[in-house]
Amino acid sequence: MLWDGRFSKDLNKKVVDFTNSIEIDKILYKYDIQGSLVHVKSMNKIGVINDEELKKINDALIKVLEEFEKNKFKFLEDDEDIHMAIERRLTELIGEVGKKLHTGRSRNDQVNLDVRMFVKDIIKHVEKKLDILIESLVNIAEKNKNIVMPGYTHLQQAQPVLFSHYILAYANKFLRNKKNFENACISADIYPLGAGALAGTPYNIDRLEAANFLGFSKISENSMDVISDRDFILDFLYASTSFAINCSRLAEDFIIYSSQEFGFFEMDDAYTTGSSIMPQKKNPDIMELIRGKSQRIIGSFNAFANLMKGLPMTYNRDMQDDKFYLLQVTKILEEFLEILPDALASTKFKADVMKNALDKGFLYATAIVDYLVKQNIPFREAHKITGNVVRFCIENKKTFTDLTLEAYKKFSPVFEDDIFSIFDANKIINEQLIHGSTSLKSIEKQILNLRKIVR
Amino acid sequence: MLWDGRFSKDLNKKVVDFTNSIEIDKILYKYDIQGSLVHVKSMNKIGVINDEELKKINDALIKVLEEFEKNKFKFLEDDEDIHMAIERRLTELIGEVGKKLHTGRSRNDQVNLDVRMFVKDIIKHVEKKLDILIESLVNIAEKNKNIVMPGYTHLQQAQPVLFSHYILAYANKFLRNKKNFENACISADIYPLGAGALAGTPYNIDRLEAANFLGFSKISENSMDVISDRDFILDFLYASTSFAINCSRLAEDFIIYSSQEFGFFEMDDAYTTGSSIMPQKKNPDIMELIRGKSQRIIGSFNAFANLMKGLPMTYNRDMQDDKFYLLQVTKILEEFLEILPDALASTKFKADVMKNALDKGFLYATAIVDYLVKQNIPFREAHKITGNVVRFCIENKKTFTDLTLEAYKKFSPVFEDDIFSIFDANKIINEQLIHGSTSLKSIEKQILNLRKIVR
Amino acid sequence: MLWDGRFSKDLNKKVVDFTNSIEIDKILYKYDIQGSLVHVKSMNKIGVINDEELKKINDALIKVLEEFEKNKFKFLEDDEDIHMAIERRLTELIGEVGKKLHTGRSRNDQVNLDVRMFVKDIIKHVEKKLDILIESLVNIAEKNKNIVMPGYTHLQQAQPVLFSHYILAYANKFLRNKKNFENACISADIYPLGAGALAGTPYNIDRLEAANFLGFSKISENSMDVISDRDFILDFLYASTSFAINCSRLAEDFIIYSSQEFGFFEMDDAYTTGSSIMPQKKNPDIMELIRGKSQRIIGSFNAFANLMKGLPMTYNRDMQDDKFYLLQVTKILEEFLEILPDALASTKFKADVMKNALDKGFLYATAIVDYLVKQNIPFREAHKITGNVVRFCIENKKTFTDLTLEAYKKFSPVFEDDIFSIFDANKIINEQLIHGSTSLKSIEKQILNLRKIVR
Amino acid sequence: MLWDGRFSKDLNKKVVDFTNSIEIDKILYKYDIQGSLVHVKSMNKIGVINDEELKKINDALIKVLEEFEKNKFKFLEDDEDIHMAIERRLTELIGEVGKKLHTGRSRNDQVNLDVRMFVKDIIKHVEKKLDILIESLVNIAEKNKNIVMPGYTHLQQAQPVLFSHYILAYANKFLRNKKNFENACISADIYPLGAGALAGTPYNIDRLEAANFLGFSKISENSMDVISDRDFILDFLYASTSFAINCSRLAEDFIIYSSQEFGFFEMDDAYTTGSSIMPQKKNPDIMELIRGKSQRIIGSFNAFANLMKGLPMTYNRDMQDDKFYLLQVTKILEEFLEILPDALASTKFKADVMKNALDKGFLYATAIVDYLVKQNIPFREAHKITGNVVRFCIENKKTFTDLTLEAYKKFSPVFEDDIFSIFDANKIINEQLIHGSTSLKSIEKQILNLRKIVR
Repeated sequence: MLWDGRFSKDLNKKVVDFTNSIEIDKILYKYDIQGSLVHVKSMNKIGVINDEELKKINDALIKVLEEFEKNKFKFLEDDEDIHMAIERRLTELIGEVGKKLHTGRSRNDQVNLDVRMFVKDIIKHVEKKLDILIESLVNIAEKNKNIVMPGYTHLQQAQPVLFSHYILAYANKFLRNKKNFENACISADIYPLGAGALAGTPYNIDRLEAANFLGFSKISENSMDVISDRDFILDFLYASTSFAINCSRLAEDFIIYSSQEFGFFEMDDAYTTGSSIMPQKKNPDIMELIRGKSQRIIGSFNAFANLMKGLPMTYNRDMQDDKFYLLQVTKILEEFLEILPDALASTKFKADVMKNALDKGFLYATAIVDYLVKQNIPFREAHKITGNVVRFCIENKKTFTDLTLEAYKKFSPVFEDDIFSIFDANKIINEQLIHGSTSLKSIEKQILNLRKIVR
Repeated sequence: MLWDGRFSKDLNKKVVDFTNSIEIDKILYKYDIQGSLVHVKSMNKIGVINDEELKKINDALIKVLEEFEKNKFKFLEDDEDIHMAIERRLTELIGEVGKKLHTGRSRNDQVNLDVRMFVKDIIKHVEKKLDILIESLVNIAEKNKNIVMPGYTHLQQAQPVLFSHYILAYANKFLRNKKNFENACISADIYPLGAGALAGTPYNIDRLEAANFLGFSKISENSMDVISDRDFILDFLYASTSFAINCSRLAEDFIIYSSQEFGFFEMDDAYTTGSSIMPQKKNPDIMELIRGKSQRIIGSFNAFANLMKGLPMTYNRDMQDDKFYLLQVTKILEEFLEILPDALASTKFKADVMKNALDKGFLYATAIVDYLVKQNIPFREAHKITGNVVRFCIENKKTFTDLTLEAYKKFSPVFEDDIFSIFDANKIINEQLIHGSTSLKSIEKQILNLRKIVR
Repeated sequence: MLWDGRFSKDLNKKVVDFTNSIEIDKILYKYDIQGSLVHVKSMNKIGVINDEELKKINDALIKVLEEFEKNKFKFLEDDEDIHMAIERRLTELIGEVGKKLHTGRSRNDQVNLDVRMFVKDIIKHVEKKLDILIESLVNIAEKNKNIVMPGYTHLQQAQPVLFSHYILAYANKFLRNKKNFENACISADIYPLGAGALAGTPYNIDRLEAANFLGFSKISENSMDVISDRDFILDFLYASTSFAINCSRLAEDFIIYSSQEFGFFEMDDAYTTGSSIMPQKKNPDIMELIRGKSQRIIGSFNAFANLMKGLPMTYNRDMQDDKFYLLQVTKILEEFLEILPDALASTKFKADVMKNALDKGFLYATAIVDYLVKQNIPFREAHKITGNVVRFCIENKKTFTDLTLEAYKKFSPVFEDDIFSIFDANKIINEQLIHGSTSLKSIEKQILNLRKIVR
Repeated sequence: MLWDGRFSKDLNKKVVDFTNSIEIDKILYKYDIQGSLVHVKSMNKIGVINDEELKKINDALIKVLEEFEKNKFKFLEDDEDIHMAIERRLTELIGEVGKKLHTGRSRNDQVNLDVRMFVKDIIKHVEKKLDILIESLVNIAEKNKNIVMPGYTHLQQAQPVLFSHYILAYANKFLRNKKNFENACISADIYPLGAGALAGTPYNIDRLEAANFLGFSKISENSMDVISDRDFILDFLYASTSFAINCSRLAEDFIIYSSQEFGFFEMDDAYTTGSSIMPQKKNPDIMELIRGKSQRIIGSFNAFANLMKGLPMTYNRDMQDDKFYLLQVTKILEEFLEILPDALASTKFKADVMKNALDKGFLYATAIVDYLVKQNIPFREAHKITGNVVRFCIENKKTFTDLTLEAYKKFSPVFEDDIFSIFDANKIINEQLIHGSTSLKSIEKQILNLRKIVR
């Protein structure tokens, strides 16, 4: 044990298991060694470690790194965390010199550094994968540019839209989530070493230089702040949560649109599963699992936010669980990003079913309102007249196209023969020319812009 | 794959990993086999499986159980969950007959059964451990019956109390949490088999008899309800949450009372850890980890409640994660219950430090109020007079015992010489004779009662 | 201010606003006065308050109660909470005697008592309303006993069920939630007075008698425990959460089933709303709001659980917010229970649409499996054969009834002419005779049992 | 009712209450009118509203605004939300022309606009207040620059630090939270009008111009996305959550440091409260309430995130509660920001008590390690030696300064007379010269930098 000078009794075995974090923090080995390599360089520069010692430590650290990468590193039962395991191995390899490694730093700033490097790496990876996901949505939009479908509010048919417009809505959502990850990366990008246990260090190392070596653009401004700080992890968990929410919404759409009653989408056999008892079932399990597992992310944010909430200054052991939540979230992020692009791309989007659905409802009602407004009927009036038409149709089991002009004229004298020309989804859609709307022209512009952004 | 009749393509490998739950649900093997043993008995009774088949299946299931218990069961890559793995192995062992096992049930009611058995077992285990924890608190109280300490509200010294009274407060809290676990057990104790996929089953098995074989006291009343129901899991996660909150509060107390400034408690070396840089540190890590890890429980409740919140009828794949949260919570419960009794029992409770703390504040103020009330001063008036005495003491850096009778008389003429006899923590404490209060007599009654309950 | 003896400065005005809780706790006036009436009786019995004083206080308290009930009570700016407001008014009415009211109790046990009485009352009210809700579901089931509909898993058509079976599933869920409220009531039913500020009280009142006067069946066992305890509030918030989750699920069903594509349910005009721009819209807003507002309940549980999580002993001011969450949750509970029975009862359940939906899918697949099993094909084999039939139908755009016997025989020789007799939803449904299944007979038994329970 | 054309029955009264949002959304009146003023300008520019109509509507809208600001606006019972109330009043004032106002927009994009304007305003306000809070911390640091105190990890004394360093740690935390609010502002700064109900609008208004009029720098790219989007609200709630967590941590520190046992801080009488029964109490209620009420913020984030989680496209009525959570959070933010600067500034930071605390523990242990390292003892060895010294001191009830040089030499021969010169908190502190550490020089630099940033 690293602190055994002061203690008279060994740690209880159960306690060792309870406090041990190596199962989780072993993923940090690479960052820990990189950080140590830079730290000894700093210590060498100010003369605390001489050139010969530097070389010995460097060589040994690289050897340890290789052991990890070749999966040959052997953990001992006493290794309470990854940092102690590496230092222990170092001392095995080069003896007394190894015991100098920890001069001028504390586990508090060391772990802080490792986790920041880990988070930055994860974010870079997630950003790349998010681009792929967004691109996959853009491709789907392009490939299915002309499909019309009902747009929904309150899960009620509202107005006709292009399917491509619908699917690009998610591209926009994921772009925003990417911005959240970028913000989290800025928060993580603060070099903490030199903060020591909490007060700083009397060794006057060049922190800025060390930061640059490890790809950090800033150094921390207050040692007590940085030791007690996990805001960058919250920022990351929040970015993940914002993404999980949108994944879950996409999943909800796919589940509903894959029902027999909607029948708009058919996910590929490779992305659905069956039933142990009902041979006809083809369940959109992937999407249900995405909706369900999004809670592992949202729940992790909530758990960690509340873990931090009442902690006094500065470091408290509670904070060790930051890595637990980081790992849990990272695993699910990885799964979502790995599965979604292909799952979406392989789905069959059934143009005919979606088109047919347009005829059952009264999706053209807004178009009637607009028709009346053009005849100079005030909007609210036009809305009311159209409402009366709808009610009449429902009560008489008719659709808009079933009515005669005379019938229309009973609701308002301004109706003329051209009323029948508006019951055309494509026409309505393509009249929405305004920036960001559902017309084909707008879609083409959206696709162009999105391609520029993700590439 | 069990549903491959209807499908034309194999599941994507990534999808298999994403949907596979075997890493988690393999803990259910015992319950799954027990359930199957009873199910085939039911099916035999109504003639669907004949005696010879019954024997074959029974023998094979027991063999499979042995393979698990000897850690010899071999999972194949295609085993998507524990239920299919067991049935696959059964069919390997006895061929075609094995394919009859699943008649008259669905994975939906089968999993439901397994999880209910699992939850019931966990709860029984937790209840036993809770008794041990409560007993350990009672032992501590008895052993340290006479120690006086300041009682706190707002973390400000309030009134003197017996330490034993303080520690027994937690015994009462944990007793309530035990009640919550009992309630969860009642919820889990519903036999679901016969609900089929959701609609029931045309095989008219004797559900009540089967339930009794497996130790269930009730059978489900509505198949769609039971298939869609995870309320019993929520009840269990809630019980765990209520326990975690109280553990976290106990931990907060121990952390504060172990600070140098309080210095009331000293946890044993075996339950504390040191610092990588500060050799003097003796950190109450165990208690910090309990406070921190309590979030894994509270967060799991929150995640699963929100997972269930928007799901339509009946089974949805999202619900597969119930086992993830169950396992996560069960692991932490086990750790808390394993660690706490000894961690508490081995703590040194420092009578002298706690006693000395009583003299620094103005803990006897309430006693002065009561003194005045006995002289027939109305309560609010007495409160005000005493407040004036306190203010005078603070401004003149004096304590209650520093003042002379004359000084007291300036605040109220009713003060007499006997005022000085009340500045005695033990006297004050032992005047609180009422049921549930802090007097020694009350403590002894509490200990007696608690011993009756947990034994 | 009640504590002004000790203080030299007045509270900052902003602070008064920040700490003031009267806007919320004024709802407790009735309980506070009832509690005081019993408390003075206790104090009288042990001679602290004489008979004349008792009468004065009693009369004045009843006068104050009347002022509240006639909405004539005037709050002053200095009234920081309801308890002080009532005591202030009492002293206005009867002078010095009023200042004796607070002898032998503290605001800590006083508030605790008031809130427990409040929670018990709310629960009794909620239980009655839950019975009405359950009864309304039973009535709907009875009225629509014979309607057939597709049962869903994964939002995919699974097996035909009776609509009445579906709706009774919710009756079962709400029954369980009612049990949770009953458990919370038992937790609240502990009389706390006598616990004082935290240590008990030297006034030896008869706590059990006082408890009985106020309808409590138990008294608290440890004063520090009860002062620090809000477990009963958590139990209540949890019961509310469990109910909110099931309400939200019911709402999700109604929203989906009210879509044009499903078209199973049509909520009454009085329970739906329209659109500001689309005259044809008839949105199931009520159900969306129930789904959405369920978060005010679930979120309150989560917030309060995490508020309590890290608090040291005993009372901490953070706990003042217990009433905020109680009120927030109570308001939504009340709304849900007020709206749901009529909203459900006035919904049109469209038998024809649901029946027609049965024919589109392959809901009879399980029946084919059961047919084959009866011909002694092992279950897994039967499942596979049926899967093949389904795939053939899909690929050739046929339904089960489109195939000839010869076609069937290609999949298995055991098919005979009677295969066509099984494609009958009512027949399948009524073969599920087992307890708790979907047959009409089972429904009738369920209705009978539920009527017994809620009445 | 605005949609009554299609409906045959009136809304149920209870339903009106349940769905009515005016109690909450009335705060949006200013934004709604500003938005309408710009919208009619857009509609006028494309000829849908002529100049005369424009003037009429403009004048009337300004009149309505005045009515609100003079508190003279009268709501009618039928006003279901603020938007309809304003339009209703407009039509009262100018008749038919008023009915044209809603042409070319939907409540969906209208509400979206109003809420975005509201959020942007709130954030600007919060940012200003955050600057004041940070400045108040900087002032406190400057005024108390030289006070030494123990720095804590695990709530155990760790190393001596300057109090000013401690308090500036929070300035850094709040700066980060400010960044989160800035990010949320960027998310909100998207002009949504033109998105219509979900599909866009056939009226080709100049969206960019309209956006600029209202101070927006971007317009939305996809109408379905923006109508379904509440990410900007989540970003705001998250920023608030990150701030609440740090407020809660600050509060925890103040509560602990205000205990009699620590005694480091004494909050002003104006910011503390007393007890109804214990006249000596001076409770840090403000800080307890901040710690407690932080849950109203964190809980709101959690509730709203989970509300959004499962919603399908595009608008769903559940989302109406966004304003509920916005208001709840805004209210608490306002309170925290209003109270904290003065509450902190008026606190007495007791230099002598903090200084004395340094002598009780073994805070100089790290300095001994550094001393040994300078004598070329490897760090781990030095750590162990110092640990032995600490243990010896504890076992013999001595402090570092009690030991003789001979005693030290028993632990290591490298100890010399100068060992005694290191037991000086100021010396140790001021040797931590590195950027961001606790030395006075570092503090002065921090103060300078922070002053630049907030001004």
